[in-house]
Amino acid sequence: MSKGNPSDAKVISYEDLESRNAKWVKLGKIKYTDPKGVTRDWEMASRKTRIEGTKIDGVGIIAIIENSKGPEIVLQKQFRAPVGGVCIEMPAGLIDPNESIETCALRELKEETGYIGKVLHTSPIVYNDPGFTNTNLILVTVEIDMKDERNINPKPALEESEFIETFTVPLANFPEELIKLDKEGYLLDARLQNVAHGITIARQFRLS
Amino acid sequence: MSKGNPSDAKVISYEDLESRNAKWVKLGKIKYTDPKGVTRDWEMASRKTRIEGTKIDGVGIIAIIENSKGPEIVLQKQFRAPVGGVCIEMPAGLIDPNESIETCALRELKEETGYIGKVLHTSPIVYNDPGFTNTNLILVTVEIDMKDERNINPKPALEESEFIETFTVPLANFPEELIKLDKEGYLLDARLQNVAHGITIARQFRLS
Repeated sequence: MSKGNPSDAKVISYEDLESRNAKWVKLGKIKYTDPKGVTRDWEMASRKTRIEGTKIDGVGIIAIIENSKGPEIVLQKQFRAPVGGVCIEMPAGLIDPNESIETCALRELKEETGYIGKVLHTSPIVYNDPGFTNTNLILVTVEIDMKDERNINPKPALEESEFIETFTVPLANFPEELIKLDKEGYLLDARLQNVAHGITIARQFRLS
Repeated sequence: MSKGNPSDAKVISYEDLESRNAKWVKLGKIKYTDPKGVTRDWEMASRKTRIEGTKIDGVGIIAIIENSKGPEIVLQKQFRAPVGGVCIEMPAGLIDPNESIETCALRELKEETGYIGKVLHTSPIVYNDPGFTNTNLILVTVEIDMKDERNINPKPALEESEFIETFTVPLANFPEELIKLDKEGYLLDARLQNVAHGITIARQFRLS
């Protein structure tokens, strides 16, 4: 297990990279016909890690702890080199060969946070930035039962190069906690912040 | 204004692209020190369109129509070549030089949908997929007042290469409408679907 404060990581340098020299990412040019039949080009970026024959890159996990104090949501701090800072994210990970969505979500949750969860809900495939890239995920909502003794002292099993700090906030204050973390200089993952914004909209328009 | 059904667009071909031949997108290699001081590499993708000196690519717009039937949300269908299908998205766009977030949001909303809006709320910067790319946006929540006569017959001003179909759904059914659209074969933008999922979570845990 890797220990270390995500805020201690730092970008040293950046240089442009040609696709042929990249191991994990690539660029592509698509030819398509528009709705009027005109042929056009579009440029895109993608991951090289997607398993052949599948259409899904990975999972994001909305992990809800149910305990006597009310529901809490599991969040993470992780340094992300592409954005040069520490992001607030949900647990997430890429799918292994022949792995189901549910298995992947419970495996990643256990590896990254130590928690044993139960899948409540899986979303459709969602596309992170579909004008730019085909990267996508399925959002898996997981319940963590604190009556399960294995969840009392959860022990992550991180890889040597992974530095993930797990923490929880009450679900009732989730939107306000993210705004506070942004003000403290953390960077917000869109997929996470937008779930929080949905809660804000539900409150504002009394949708529940 | 472009007319045409987004579903009539089709991908013809895909080929790998080297960064030096790309106009809109590029790859990069970052050197960074991890929290233990070890030097590591990370590969990333980014847009070439970001205005120099700014940190923000664009805006996403949660546009709420207030009328006597209750609040509705403005959605779009748009063919997205990187994912090879028609996406359900919120109105969105890239920031022009020297443009404020609010001005950009109201300009893009008017161009893409014809509606005149009023900004209610701007989010922090949110990162679409921070392990892969620095692309980001600010989510702007906008109110559309149907008592404003200019909103009765909204007229989009789309570019010749833009084919965007605007529609609305009741905010109260927004999560269910997205699931239905997914089943019909449309692809869901993560940023939009996750706002809907936040509404679902607020309902489930009675957060409002």
